Amino acid sequence: MIEGEIKIRVRYAEVDRMGHVYNGNYATYFEMGRTELLRGHGLVYKDLEDSGIIMPLSEFSVKYYKPAHYDDELILHTKMNMPKGVRLIFDYNLYNSERVLLAEGITSLVFVDSKTRRPIRPPKNLVEQFS
Amino acid sequence: MIEGEIKIRVRYAEVDRMGHVYNGNYATYFEMGRTELLRGHGLVYKDLEDSGIIMPLSEFSVKYYKPAHYDDELILHTKMNMPKGVRLIFDYNLYNSERVLLAEGITSLVFVDSKTRRPIRPPKNLVEQFS
Amino acid sequence: MIEGEIKIRVRYAEVDRMGHVYNGNYATYFEMGRTELLRGHGLVYKDLEDSGIIMPLSEFSVKYYKPAHYDDELILHTKMNMPKGVRLIFDYNLYNSERVLLAEGITSLVFVDSKTRRPIRPPKNLVEQFS
Amino acid sequence: MIEGEIKIRVRYAEVDRMGHVYNGNYATYFEMGRTELLRGHGLVYKDLEDSGIIMPLSEFSVKYYKPAHYDDELILHTKMNMPKGVRLIFDYNLYNSERVLLAEGITSLVFVDSKTRRPIRPPKNLVEQFS
Repeated sequence: MIEGEIKIRVRYAEVDRMGHVYNGNYATYFEMGRTELLRGHGLVYKDLEDSGIIMPLSEFSVKYYKPAHYDDELILHTKMNMPKGVRLIFDYNLYNSERVLLAEGITSLVFVDSKTRRPIRPPKNLVEQFS
Repeated sequence: MIEGEIKIRVRYAEVDRMGHVYNGNYATYFEMGRTELLRGHGLVYKDLEDSGIIMPLSEFSVKYYKPAHYDDELILHTKMNMPKGVRLIFDYNLYNSERVLLAEGITSLVFVDSKTRRPIRPPKNLVEQFS
Repeated sequence: MIEGEIKIRVRYAEVDRMGHVYNGNYATYFEMGRTELLRGHGLVYKDLEDSGIIMPLSEFSVKYYKPAHYDDELILHTKMNMPKGVRLIFDYNLYNSERVLLAEGITSLVFVDSKTRRPIRPPKNLVEQFS
Repeated sequence: MIEGEIKIRVRYAEVDRMGHVYNGNYATYFEMGRTELLRGHGLVYKDLEDSGIIMPLSEFSVKYYKPAHYDDELILHTKMNMPKGVRLIFDYNLYNSERVLLAEGITSLVFVDSKTRRPIRPPKNLVEQFS
């Protein structure tokens, strides 16, 4: 298991007419969380794609407890579990700058061969790297 | 329980470099599904907001079975359950034009007073309308 | 020169906390305008990409006269001029449902070989089709 | 005239199936550029809105010279000119990490009273601050 945090400044483009971050934009925040978590551990997701592996989502869920607002500086805590078969699961906790929990989420990603578009086992070096 | 269908043409802006509809954009599709379902039953969500009620999401989940692609004409089936307390739950099934199931989702929305920002019971006429 | 119109229902996801369609989303509306204009004249942009030609933008401009709002049913008028060299220029007029002009825009697109990523002349049949 | 730079990491959500940052997303990058430029000079745009002034765009234009790609760390140079009447004009230069110019843009914003929704002169302290 590895974990890490990033800060995210809420953009005007991301906020709806209620004044809340639009619910669909949490998906992008979570994407940033896992990308930077992997980068911090030496794995650049772009390189993975360049090597012929894509990682589409198979599941996504969020619980929204409190809204995030424009210009907030959010803290996103991301936790990656070890790959299970062809799947990789990440957990997310999103906080505002006072460490109040705003939302929790989970994404499940699948290792897929970008040519055949079929699920594959994760590359050995990736599994070893995170064990 | 009420249900209905809409068609959604996938926009270029919505597709990522894998060639899939970006996972976060399903939230927007589901938003369209419930808005049009309500409109078809005489309730314009905008009017609800104008009357002082907003409906932020409290939960959102998706299972992605197969990717949606650029320019696909998708079919979104939306089902609304009767309000339970302060909550309103919608189920979604997303198909491609050959009726292959691409994804399933659920959203839970909360009736909120737009001034106090506190959960409230749904307006009586709305409950009666859908019973 | 060819021209045509589409209707666009403003989505919740597209509106910002001012209550206006976020300025960047006009790009997506214009994309829809030109895609449907071409489709109406027998050219599916997706097929063009599948045949090895991509059309990135080289220029984009908008003048915003009046805001577009949530749930508005907009009318987008799109005009395509004949290809000039490697370029294709579209003009857009965006109206609300009372035909009040909300915005005007122009995009310039370039025919590019998707493999070499270099500008190319438009395919002959495409030029003939629109002359 | 004031100017400044920010870095922007391209998100997966922002890239289209050509592998380019989708043309409409430059609007969001420019929004970030002007927000951070103002913040760096002591003006938080959110505070301006909270004080009753909104700043919708009246014009927007971009010239795209070279594409930006996924995971690129872009450099955005933003320049703000002094307010002219009710307008505020920003110029943008977007570079990749090797300082190659990718795009140039201009936005014109209008000072608007958030209640009356009519153009107004900029607040005196704001004009003095930047003179």
